[in-house]
Order: sequence, then structure tokens, then C-alpha cells
Amino acid sequence: MRPGSSSKLLFTPGPLTTSATVKEAMLRDLGSRDREFIGVVRAIRERLLAIGGAAHGGDYECVLMQGSGTFAIESVISSAIPHNSRLLVLVNGAYGRRIVEMARIHAIEIDVLETPENQKISPRAVAEHLAAAAGITHVAVIHCETTTGIVNPVEEIGAVVAGAGAVFIVDAMSSFGAIPIDLNKGRIDFLISSANKCIEGVPGFGFVLARREALLGAKGQARTLSLDLHAQWAGLERDGQFRFTPPTHALLAYHQALMEHEAEGGVSGRAARYARNHEILAEGMAALGFEPYLSREDQSYIITTYRYPAASWFSFQELYSRLSELGFVIYPGKLSQEACFRIGTIGQLCAKDIENLLAAIHGVIGQMKQRCVQEV
Amino acid sequence: MRPGSSSKLLFTPGPLTTSATVKEAMLRDLGSRDREFIGVVRAIRERLLAIGGAAHGGDYECVLMQGSGTFAIESVISSAIPHNSRLLVLVNGAYGRRIVEMARIHAIEIDVLETPENQKISPRAVAEHLAAAAGITHVAVIHCETTTGIVNPVEEIGAVVAGAGAVFIVDAMSSFGAIPIDLNKGRIDFLISSANKCIEGVPGFGFVLARREALLGAKGQARTLSLDLHAQWAGLERDGQFRFTPPTHALLAYHQALMEHEAEGGVSGRAARYARNHEILAEGMAALGFEPYLSREDQSYIITTYRYPAASWFSFQELYSRLSELGFVIYPGKLSQEACFRIGTIGQLCAKDIENLLAAIHGVIGQMKQRCVQEV
Repeated sequence: MRPGSSSKLLFTPGPLTTSATVKEAMLRDLGSRDREFIGVVRAIRERLLAIGGAAHGGDYECVLMQGSGTFAIESVISSAIPHNSRLLVLVNGAYGRRIVEMARIHAIEIDVLETPENQKISPRAVAEHLAAAAGITHVAVIHCETTTGIVNPVEEIGAVVAGAGAVFIVDAMSSFGAIPIDLNKGRIDFLISSANKCIEGVPGFGFVLARREALLGAKGQARTLSLDLHAQWAGLERDGQFRFTPPTHALLAYHQALMEHEAEGGVSGRAARYARNHEILAEGMAALGFEPYLSREDQSYIITTYRYPAASWFSFQELYSRLSELGFVIYPGKLSQEACFRIGTIGQLCAKDIENLLAAIHGVIGQMKQRCVQEV
Repeated sequence: MRPGSSSKLLFTPGPLTTSATVKEAMLRDLGSRDREFIGVVRAIRERLLAIGGAAHGGDYECVLMQGSGTFAIESVISSAIPHNSRLLVLVNGAYGRRIVEMARIHAIEIDVLETPENQKISPRAVAEHLAAAAGITHVAVIHCETTTGIVNPVEEIGAVVAGAGAVFIVDAMSSFGAIPIDLNKGRIDFLISSANKCIEGVPGFGFVLARREALLGAKGQARTLSLDLHAQWAGLERDGQFRFTPPTHALLAYHQALMEHEAEGGVSGRAARYARNHEILAEGMAALGFEPYLSREDQSYIITTYRYPAASWFSFQELYSRLSELGFVIYPGKLSQEACFRIGTIGQLCAKDIENLLAAIHGVIGQMKQRCVQEV
């Protein structure tokens, strides 16, 4: 644990470890109609558009939505897809399946194109599906599937979707701000992410970067009040205020987090640190005998999935608890078929933190192995 | 402004001024699956039940829901009211109308019993409506209508609703924790409030205190994924975790806020401070010539509505801005018919803060009047 901090280091997909200055930005109470607060909200919306390569005044708009990232995704699914539409969901993990579940609840007609969890979604397979299945109006995909850490080829898929004249929805929850993504190049209509991911804010809201034309088309067709994407945007545009109470402290933290993201060199600066974190982790875990679930070329620097060692000494619960006691929080697996665990390399973590984690894992598994020998 | 704080004092219905210690509780990053965090969530849920007079293990359950208070209300309206139901909404302000709007979006059949905004809802009128209109299965009311600050007689209405065999839904957003309310005595099935109100936490989530039997009846009938009240509860019960990322920092703050609420003497202690705040405000505003919108016996100590003075020197925008510059944030009106503004007396405010606000108002309106004379 770092000196002066009572926080553990979080090697998870979020909530993440954030900087002290991001958290300290929450030591104020601002009114939700306060002029300064309205300025903070405006600055956040403009900066997010810029990170997506769509400067303010261009073709895109930014909508902030209270709740977790899932709430922001549901705001798109339940607002932007009219009745009599057909949504193709590209699935290679739990987050793709979550969109399927959401669409079913809203009685949206769906097609599912499923790819094994250890493979990227193939743009060619998407093209073939779109050619074979008539009437698909919307396509949804996960950019970085946090289930495994795999990154799907969003720009190539976007070209295929645009070619078919469909609306393209991208869940970029765990990638936005750290893996380059260009709204225009990706032909993206709706991109969704949340506060507590690679921009390194605290949880409390998500956001949607929407092509203005597609967003305007969502007017009056939302299936809820709270998650009405167009009404939320219209409110923010009208007077800069949220329709319903915003998480003021989380927004102050995010404003600070965006400044720190920019100071680190924006997406490329952050990508460089995370990539270095991942390299150190991959090398160290290999040396400790852990086998990654994904092949090297498919693995992102966001989060890495490791198979449980097929050895009698290994217990994930024990590894997790002992590491947690030492101040390092790792993450359970979410695969539908295999027993795995995950280690995130995003958040306010640097090379030294990864090295310390590796040393702790080395120590804990050493003890686990030794005790196993003694017991036998 | 208080020394050492860069926050303004908020005389609003929330987000409110919170204590330094509540905000400082956010200076940690906890993982959402962390054992300590799960303990914090459990303690919050138990304490909220106790404040509602329903100890853990009794007939009630506590469900926390991400987002603003409106999200928590929509989780009840969209989860707990089956198809083929009929909802009676008792309306004497904007928050009652919001429930009507929500129910319309979810295609729930509704009756509206409207009472003028300056009058309490009459339990007798409710009884007459229930007797005359067949088939009403659910009744919703606002406890303290923040539109005006009026408090509706929830226990008396609850007896009438129970007598008619209907489910009783109470929006206690701005009253819970400061105006006594007993779930059992009020025959309440669902009570909703949020984090940034009288418990004095920061915004980021709301909560529902639900009669277990009514909550179990909501299983499988939610109209959304994110706002599925029963699934959210089942997740919290299963492993103590939220289904989707919780606002970890806001929950840490709330845990601290609940301890401070208890230390102040719980609901009665907090009520005493807020009532004193209100008395000082009412006396001071009367001395300054401001006329309250509600009659004295209908006025709560939560928030007070004042009519715009019918005088050429008065400009609410100017009063608001000048007070804000001095560190005091007041609140605009929300009445459908009259030009009013509001001053809240809840949050981490004491007698001295109200006196300072009154002195500031005195100064600002003095200057406004003087300038008006000079211009004439």
C-alpha cells in the first residue's frame, strides 16, 4: 500500500485506483444549478468529444447519464432503437450478452452473432450476417470485452455496418481514453463509456457520444423517463443542467481526472503507461507459470485473463484474500466455460505497482505451494 | 463562507451542504467486491431500515439503486406495478406530476387526484376517490412536496389505502431522516428516498424500503434491466454486491453520514436542528417583508417557498447571483402558477448559517432598493 493512503491498489476493470487529486476534488459541495458547476459539466462534455476525435460543434454530441455504465448503455438501447427495428448484437463475452438481455426486456427484435470468447469478432462474418439477414437496422458491439480483455476491430466493423446502412452502437466502457477510437472513422452513431474507467474518475455516471442526427431521431421514443437519452441531452443543452440530480462530487472528480488525462498526453500517453503495465504483468506472470487465456496478439493492455493453474495447491479464493490483505485487489473471472481470474492494468497504477503486485503473488503462491507439500 | 472551505453554503433541496468528514470519507478507492465495501453496504441497508422503524429481519427490505432519486422512484413504478393495474397518483406539486409522467411512459393506467399546491392532500378525498373509482391497485403520494415544502399526511392516507386493499407507494425524498415516518404505522409498501437529502450524504444513489411481500411480487415484471428493483435486491442479498458498478465513494460518504445522523440523535435530533433553522429563517424573512407561500400550519422545516415581492426593485436573478457571490446558494421556484423562490433549511447548516444568510439577504435587497430609487 502506498504511504499516506488507506486505499488498496485496485487491479480490476473498475472502480479503479484514482489519484489523490481526483479524490480531493470531491471535498466541495456545489449546487447542481451553480454557475461554476454548469461550467464543469460543459467542460467535461467538450473534452469527451475531443477525446473521441469529434470537436464541439462537429457532428457529435455528448450526453452524461447518472448511474453505472450499464445505465448509459440502456439509455441508448431503450431510447435510440424505435419499434419495428431489428438489432444485431455481436457477442464474444458477458457484456455483449448483457446488451442482448437488455434488448429482450425492451421487446426489441434481435439477432445474435456469437463468436467464441477467445476470438475477436470478424468484420467479414458481420458482413455475411448482414447480407443474409434482411431488415437489420442497428448493430451493437463491445470494443474491449472486459470478460477476457479482447479488443474487437471496431473501425472495420463500423465500415461494414455503415455499408449496410445500419446504426452502429459501440460499448467502449473499458477502452475509451486509453485505446484510440475515432468516432468518425469508426462510423459510430452511439459510443458509451463510464466515469470510473480509463479516464480514471470515480463511479457515478456514464456518458454517450452520439452522432447528432441519430440522437435527434431518438426524440420522444424513450421507453423510460430516467434513461431518456434525448431528453437528457435537451436538458443539458437548454440550461446546462441535468434533468434530475447529478452526482456533483463525481463530476468534480471527473473534471480533475480529464485534466490529468490531458497532462499525461491524452489517449496516447495513457495507452503508453497501461501498455507498459501490461508488459510487466505479462512477463512476470509468465515467469510465475501462469497461462493467459488469450493469445498474445488478441490481448489488450486493459485487463488480462489467466487460467487457474491445474495444481492442487491453487485456490483463487485464498490468492484473492491474501493479496487483498497485502493491499492488492485482483478480480475474479467471468468466462462462461473456463475457470479464470483477471488482473487489470488500468487506473492510477505504474510499473512499480505492477512489480509490487508480482512480488506479492510470488510470495503468496510460494506459501500456498509449501503448505500443500506439508499437508501431503 | 466557512473558513477552510471552498464550498458555498447550499440552501437548496439537495445536493446539500455536507460535513467535512462525510466528504473526507471519499478519499479512498475501494473495490466494489471488496469485503470491507460489502460490509459498508450491509450497514447502510440495515441502518436505513432502522430509521424507517423496521429493524433488519422484520417485514421490510432495503434496496439501493444507482442514479438520482428519480431513478429509484422509477425502479418502483416500473418494477412493482404489474400490467392490468391501475395507479392513483395524489398530486399537489411537481413531484407528484413526475410520477404521473413516469407511469404514462410505462403505459400504466392512471388516475390523478389533484389538490392545489398550497393545500395538503386530504385523506378523506382519497377515501372518496377510492370508493368511487373501481379497480385501483396502487396509490402513490409525495411525503414532503419539495415544490412548496408542504407535508402530506402519509399515515392517515396509508390507513385509507390499506383499507381499500391497495399497494401504497411513498416518495419521501426530501423528508426521510428528518420528519418521522414509520413504515408499519403508515402501512407503506414502498418508500423511496435518496442519498443527498436529510441524511446529508452526497448524490449518487437512491434507496427503496419495501415490504418484503410486495417486493417479492415484483420479481420478473420489471420493464428495464438497470432499474429492476427485485433483481437489484436479489443481487444484494446473494453476495452483498451490486449487479452493476456502485458509486463506491458516495456509499462510503453515506456510511459516515449515517453515523453522524445517529450521533445527532437520529430523526428527532435532526428534526430539532432543521426546525430551529426554519424558525430563524421564517422570523427573519418576515422581518425583511417576504411573504411565505404556504400558511404557517402547512409549512415544513425542510424548504420554504416565498412569493416574489410585488416591487419594482426585485429581481430574483440578481438576488440569486449576488447571494451566490457571497457564498449562499438559494433555489428557484417550481410552482405551476406563481412566481416564487425557495430556501432550504436542511443539510449541514446551523442557526448561525441561517443568520448569516439573512444578513446577506438584508444587505443585497437594501442595495437593490437603493439602486432602484436612484434610477427613478
